[in-house]
Amino acid sequence: MSSRELVVLGTASQVPTRRRNHNGYLLRWDREGILFDPGEGTQRQMLLAGVSATDLTRVCVTHFHGDHCLGLPGLIQRLSLDRVPHPVPVHFPAGGARYYDRLRHASSFHDVTDVRAEPVGFDGQRFEIGAGVLEARRLRHPVETYGYRLVAPDGRRMLRDRLEAYGISGPAVGALQRDGHLDLDGRRVPLAAVSEHRRGQRFAFVMDTGLCDNVFALAEEADLLVIESTFLSEDAALAAEVGHLTAAQAGRVAAESRVRRLVLTHFSQRYPDPERFAAEARERFDGDLVVADDLTRVPVPPTA
Amino acid sequence: MSSRELVVLGTASQVPTRRRNHNGYLLRWDREGILFDPGEGTQRQMLLAGVSATDLTRVCVTHFHGDHCLGLPGLIQRLSLDRVPHPVPVHFPAGGARYYDRLRHASSFHDVTDVRAEPVGFDGQRFEIGAGVLEARRLRHPVETYGYRLVAPDGRRMLRDRLEAYGISGPAVGALQRDGHLDLDGRRVPLAAVSEHRRGQRFAFVMDTGLCDNVFALAEEADLLVIESTFLSEDAALAAEVGHLTAAQAGRVAAESRVRRLVLTHFSQRYPDPERFAAEARERFDGDLVVADDLTRVPVPPTA
Repeated sequence: MSSRELVVLGTASQVPTRRRNHNGYLLRWDREGILFDPGEGTQRQMLLAGVSATDLTRVCVTHFHGDHCLGLPGLIQRLSLDRVPHPVPVHFPAGGARYYDRLRHASSFHDVTDVRAEPVGFDGQRFEIGAGVLEARRLRHPVETYGYRLVAPDGRRMLRDRLEAYGISGPAVGALQRDGHLDLDGRRVPLAAVSEHRRGQRFAFVMDTGLCDNVFALAEEADLLVIESTFLSEDAALAAEVGHLTAAQAGRVAAESRVRRLVLTHFSQRYPDPERFAAEARERFDGDLVVADDLTRVPVPPTA
Repeated sequence: MSSRELVVLGTASQVPTRRRNHNGYLLRWDREGILFDPGEGTQRQMLLAGVSATDLTRVCVTHFHGDHCLGLPGLIQRLSLDRVPHPVPVHFPAGGARYYDRLRHASSFHDVTDVRAEPVGFDGQRFEIGAGVLEARRLRHPVETYGYRLVAPDGRRMLRDRLEAYGISGPAVGALQRDGHLDLDGRRVPLAAVSEHRRGQRFAFVMDTGLCDNVFALAEEADLLVIESTFLSEDAALAAEVGHLTAAQAGRVAAESRVRRLVLTHFSQRYPDPERFAAEARERFDGDLVVADDLTRVPVPPTA
């Protein structure tokens, strides 16, 4: 399996801090680099994190509040300035198309990279992409917002004892995986004889939203869930009013959806101690938990 | 005289670096806070520099290349989020009004602060502002670009020996300055008897441009000149071709225009050692010179 990891570019909510830039997350997934919610300053955070413009193959915007999209103009212009040769599709809520158009052409530049709008038009819309199936689900927020879920195709897990029994090793294993069979001493060994089914990895990205069914649907058995936890439970009423989650709710979602690794982020600057988010979520969820910090990397756990 | 200083927010040119954010400069001038060329990330740089949204009273954009304006949406939204109660005029090249409109309404927000467009329509246009007279002059760059020059009203310098001769001290000095005269033991002492003419301070902001007459006109006897020096002389031909200055040219402008303090900035990331900019400029200009760094402050020198 190729390297699949989340590169955290920014973790603040509406107000950036000394420690936290506005939002931004790059999902490295085999040969794809999918950037979620580029907030202002994302192009410089990419530089600080060692991500080049060429690494980007796709952008997903959840909604058009500033902290989730104001890095888009700089990013789009950077793609052209750095002469990125491949097309870069951008997903966003169709209802915000006027904002996309403004951000797409925000100032004067030599527009050479093929940045193509692929708006999300309805709840549950799916996009077949190289990495698998990307699904968008409507969330509960004052403006039209979609969370995203990426599911890789199912694959095969090689079984060491079977391979040994056939005496298959080295480059022959790769050939077997690639061709689906291997001719060995005049006998054809099918892939199924030396491997078992392995479900594709699942990644989910949930923000900004009040708690609703689609949060659970997006998170369902995700290997890695990135989810906003803007507030703590002491401000649960405010969170619900403005369409946000608490860390405790994020923990509950992770537990009920059998998430394998939970990444909390999008923190309100009103809480100086990020450990409080972890503590609240851990009361509900006893799995692997990361309180995101800028410029860190979180591997997507391999499927069990 | 009140505090007048430049707060440097960002000093990179097109490509930000670890050390340099995109452009951004706040001029604190008595009660005004004039922000020049907010590049992407300016709102966070303000936070790092201890500048609040309320400190801003005016914005001047030289031109609509991304590194000079992509911080505008975040800044404008920050003004409303922080409920800035005073109007904030924004100057920009009138030919770029479509870009201004996109940046002004780049994404969804609760738009409460009175941000008002005051476009620059012609070379030499002047705006009477609280701080004095703000003049815009057309520069030489591939897109419509204006440099800015701010001239404070002339004033009076109090003469200590004359005050002592009249026996005027303490709060009476302030009353004399405010009223223009002081009644003292039945005799009226006019301000002119105890003071001399002092010319108003001058600030100039020049970027991006090839060398042209207006660069000298803007810089003329400036107390503080902030000027782009994107390139070094070894790349002088490239600089001229793309409409930029070298550090040597910036030094020549400062010398011929009798500038008092020269601030070099907007450095290309191709030169790792910023001291080379200083060395080139010093060959032409023997006055006070600052190679700008992010998050530093440069006082406007008091008039001699």
